Amino acid sequence: MYQIRTDLALETQEKMQEDHIELKGVRFLEEKINKSLTISTVVIETENGAKTMGKPRGTYITIEAGNMDEEDEDYHREISVQLAKIIKKLIKGKKEELSVLVVGLGNREVTPDALGPRVVDNLFITRHIVKEYGKYAFGSEKVNRISSIVPGVMAQTGMESLEIIHGIVDETKPDLVIAVDALAARSTKRLNRTIQVTDTGINPGSGVGNHRHGLNEKSLGVPVISIGIPTVVDAATIVNDTMFNLIAALSQSRAFDMLGNSLEELSDGEKYELIRELLAPNLNAMFVTPKDIDESVKRLSFTISEGINIAFMGGKPLEPAV
Amino acid sequence: MYQIRTDLALETQEKMQEDHIELKGVRFLEEKINKSLTISTVVIETENGAKTMGKPRGTYITIEAGNMDEEDEDYHREISVQLAKIIKKLIKGKKEELSVLVVGLGNREVTPDALGPRVVDNLFITRHIVKEYGKYAFGSEKVNRISSIVPGVMAQTGMESLEIIHGIVDETKPDLVIAVDALAARSTKRLNRTIQVTDTGINPGSGVGNHRHGLNEKSLGVPVISIGIPTVVDAATIVNDTMFNLIAALSQSRAFDMLGNSLEELSDGEKYELIRELLAPNLNAMFVTPKDIDESVKRLSFTISEGINIAFMGGKPLEPAV
Amino acid sequence: MYQIRTDLALETQEKMQEDHIELKGVRFLEEKINKSLTISTVVIETENGAKTMGKPRGTYITIEAGNMDEEDEDYHREISVQLAKIIKKLIKGKKEELSVLVVGLGNREVTPDALGPRVVDNLFITRHIVKEYGKYAFGSEKVNRISSIVPGVMAQTGMESLEIIHGIVDETKPDLVIAVDALAARSTKRLNRTIQVTDTGINPGSGVGNHRHGLNEKSLGVPVISIGIPTVVDAATIVNDTMFNLIAALSQSRAFDMLGNSLEELSDGEKYELIRELLAPNLNAMFVTPKDIDESVKRLSFTISEGINIAFMGGKPLEPAV
Amino acid sequence: MYQIRTDLALETQEKMQEDHIELKGVRFLEEKINKSLTISTVVIETENGAKTMGKPRGTYITIEAGNMDEEDEDYHREISVQLAKIIKKLIKGKKEELSVLVVGLGNREVTPDALGPRVVDNLFITRHIVKEYGKYAFGSEKVNRISSIVPGVMAQTGMESLEIIHGIVDETKPDLVIAVDALAARSTKRLNRTIQVTDTGINPGSGVGNHRHGLNEKSLGVPVISIGIPTVVDAATIVNDTMFNLIAALSQSRAFDMLGNSLEELSDGEKYELIRELLAPNLNAMFVTPKDIDESVKRLSFTISEGINIAFMGGKPLEPAV
Repeated sequence: MYQIRTDLALETQEKMQEDHIELKGVRFLEEKINKSLTISTVVIETENGAKTMGKPRGTYITIEAGNMDEEDEDYHREISVQLAKIIKKLIKGKKEELSVLVVGLGNREVTPDALGPRVVDNLFITRHIVKEYGKYAFGSEKVNRISSIVPGVMAQTGMESLEIIHGIVDETKPDLVIAVDALAARSTKRLNRTIQVTDTGINPGSGVGNHRHGLNEKSLGVPVISIGIPTVVDAATIVNDTMFNLIAALSQSRAFDMLGNSLEELSDGEKYELIRELLAPNLNAMFVTPKDIDESVKRLSFTISEGINIAFMGGKPLEPAV
Repeated sequence: MYQIRTDLALETQEKMQEDHIELKGVRFLEEKINKSLTISTVVIETENGAKTMGKPRGTYITIEAGNMDEEDEDYHREISVQLAKIIKKLIKGKKEELSVLVVGLGNREVTPDALGPRVVDNLFITRHIVKEYGKYAFGSEKVNRISSIVPGVMAQTGMESLEIIHGIVDETKPDLVIAVDALAARSTKRLNRTIQVTDTGINPGSGVGNHRHGLNEKSLGVPVISIGIPTVVDAATIVNDTMFNLIAALSQSRAFDMLGNSLEELSDGEKYELIRELLAPNLNAMFVTPKDIDESVKRLSFTISEGINIAFMGGKPLEPAV
Repeated sequence: MYQIRTDLALETQEKMQEDHIELKGVRFLEEKINKSLTISTVVIETENGAKTMGKPRGTYITIEAGNMDEEDEDYHREISVQLAKIIKKLIKGKKEELSVLVVGLGNREVTPDALGPRVVDNLFITRHIVKEYGKYAFGSEKVNRISSIVPGVMAQTGMESLEIIHGIVDETKPDLVIAVDALAARSTKRLNRTIQVTDTGINPGSGVGNHRHGLNEKSLGVPVISIGIPTVVDAATIVNDTMFNLIAALSQSRAFDMLGNSLEELSDGEKYELIRELLAPNLNAMFVTPKDIDESVKRLSFTISEGINIAFMGGKPLEPAV
Repeated sequence: MYQIRTDLALETQEKMQEDHIELKGVRFLEEKINKSLTISTVVIETENGAKTMGKPRGTYITIEAGNMDEEDEDYHREISVQLAKIIKKLIKGKKEELSVLVVGLGNREVTPDALGPRVVDNLFITRHIVKEYGKYAFGSEKVNRISSIVPGVMAQTGMESLEIIHGIVDETKPDLVIAVDALAARSTKRLNRTIQVTDTGINPGSGVGNHRHGLNEKSLGVPVISIGIPTVVDAATIVNDTMFNLIAALSQSRAFDMLGNSLEELSDGEKYELIRELLAPNLNAMFVTPKDIDESVKRLSFTISEGINIAFMGGKPLEPAV
């Protein structure tokens, strides 16, 4: 089956709807927080649903924040608070004092892929303090132990992210892994305006750097929550999409009636083949991103850090009482 | 007239040839240095030529280095040596001891736009030493005085690059400005494989960040040599080009004979309009770049630095004799 | 006269008091905002006072914030608010809509010297927007035009900061320059806990990088407010001070009565000579800084940015209404 | 026993000699390569020797390169070649095709502590290519598999370096770990002019960041070679040393005869106590480093990378034949 690449379950679900494909085993919910903030939930409940969607079973929660690309402290604070709520919801049932390893995936040297590493830069890290002084150091009975790692990408380390994280998880035994990564969307309209939080981890083909092996409960042995923001569209996707529009436009044009009919007779797969042949072969290793991506990544990484800080530390660094 | 955006005079010249447009007032020369190194020269000699080409009169020298994207020290050294030769050729007639201001244009925080700033990081800077100790400090009778600046981009400084550079040129009165910038190509095949050196400076619409005011002899009052490497393709360009290919393919297809004829009757301008309507409006603020752009920019900025160092300092830092 | 190097007028004033040197032409005021926030003002009123203090005439306001080295958002916000008040006080009488150039002095690549460049990273820059769309773009009648520059250091640019700033000021004609720089203190206790704001600009020998030419109203032609935080102590100073303590201790020791007397007969100048001879000659090019200087500079640069943002933009970025 | 802190076995050995302490179980060798390059070897052979030296048994090889602080490509190349020879010597007996994990210790955000992370930036990483395409991808029968990691520091990760490295070593099972770290010297004269290579790994109290748990064969289960360059002196050390000089000077002064005698009667331990009392208590968390440390770290990290690249890859990246 022909599938446009997107890391967003929401976009896959929309595409299915657009194409009138029935989605069995998939639930969908939408909640409007306010004019510029919508939270939608896609739950893939069955293996069948997972197959149709091309994504593993689990819960995919998406914050759509139309103005997230702008600089407005209060608005970003609200998004962080919503993100914290979603994180807490997804870990419900976990014990009260958690040891959490936050993993900043991606390449710090490529701006749109630097989201994960930059989220880690602004976290409140507590594990080493609790380990040395005990939790009472914080004058509090309950303190989560937060640790973090930026594993880098394979061209830099010679290792897969999974190898590095697996080793560290085995050694430090966190209760939970939170993996933060830059994602690829299908539509440029979603870039830097959407946060996806899932309990399925990071799976092959996800992220800007296309991880080959998944980071998930199965591979790591502990639950993995993933948080991502689409910062790029695959170059091939953007060309594909515009050409689909061209073909659709041609089909409807009166002048092109005959052609329209012929084109419409092509299946999506055949159209895809036609387009693929016209694409420059090196387009597969390319991405599309906005020119002001530096400002977006700076702002958004801070918003995610804050969300994680609120979820686990109440949003304020605790000064050790020692 | 319809014009695909490219900063490379060579691509414009090729497109003209492709479209069988006669180029009056433009000379073209090609020299094959070896199997993987070609140097071509486009000289725009008349105002008419400038108008057809959409670029100011002057000399545009292009190094095409098919393997420049790979890590091979000797090969890169050879490119640096060729670059130094071209720089020297373009400043012929200038007096022997030069004061040169190298300007690293672009945004250090956006990987493909960081070329200029990173070139500046590896230059041998001598102006302050000569100024303090005299040129004999270097135990040499002739020492060029090299200074440099990374002006940043307008969103960071609130000023146009021209304002900053103009102020510094007025104050420090260099004999020559060398402006280094990341460029936009039309074809992804040229990315990170081509160096363009010109004596026309940087002109409006050039570079990844699209400078609004030119940096050239007219605006600065001193000769400006520009050195650039294409690191991005405009997102709109890449979609345009592929769609032109689609239309061309449709035209030739037997099945689409009738349509082909209709499409062929459209002028390039009409085709462009058709396509522009289909494009997402925000695509204009987007660019396409390879996923490993960090490694390319690191390597290529070093190659250009070396070229400038060889041209002005013989390739070795002179240790002051003091 | 023997003078220990410090960029803080407050430390000079304290030293004078310690040494029972009468300070004519210097006024001193102290205001306790709360338990952990003190603002003191040194006004050097006469040329005589300037000579004794070794600093130009003008107002030196110091925020001493004992906990500034810690991570506490509310506390830092309060410091930013106080800083904004001081800035406004020092520019009183200036016209209502200002064009302000903020200069981030220092070397971004050396952590304790990166304060100035990093302050600039978080400013709200508006000059280019007002210039393009007019101030009504902000839906406001009064908008200050903020621009900024990070000139770099002489080893990187071959130019003095003054040359670069002078050129830019001549070109863009701001009403006011704000120069932010990392300072050297005499005592390690002041490091990262003190902000000095002056209306005298930056003067020779100031800052971590020891600017040779001043940035002040005289050299630039517009008022210059300087904001600095001591992040280093000169290595020579720290050794000197401890040795002065040693000599003082020896003088008081009963066992060393005779020596004590001899040492006490040495003038400060003679003691300094004695110590200077014992110092490693290369100590002059060295500085002392805390191991966690990265965290301090990150936090403090943000606090200063906020102060400037509050002073000129009310602390919130205005989204252009266009 | 009183011990000035230094990470260099060579400095400890010199101090012992200075203090006429007999060193049993320690061998010392010196080889002059040329006027500005000396290689010396300290071998600690017995537990007794280890106790006297305050360092574990093993081989400590030091390259002293008087001009290493200067920019001279040929000279640095020679140092890299010598470093490669020493590395090969220390791993003699290991099998021919090695899997090597290079660890860049230290804090990338604090300039003198960034040596390790920056060495890793310039390595030829091959493990992932060999793993995917086999070694024949390189058209060579023998290819070492190089991987690397920058673990960060505890304040950033909440984990000890040992935990991270131990986990990764368990997971990826390299034959050898090379740990690169910035060191603390006793004398400012050694800064940025000395490379120490050992087969003892990194041990508690070493490095700028003072690792609490060692990285060595015992803790990791594989041989660990450590490579370090002193980039800082502890602030307390520099004050101590100058004061020892002061006391020595006083002792020899005719005018201070009586005192001299008294002071000389103090043991080193008593002198140390006297000095310690005079030191500012926060001096322990401070270091001394040269103002141009950014340029030194940039240059030296490249020299070490080259040494490792030569040792394992012949100094040239192999382009996969695929």
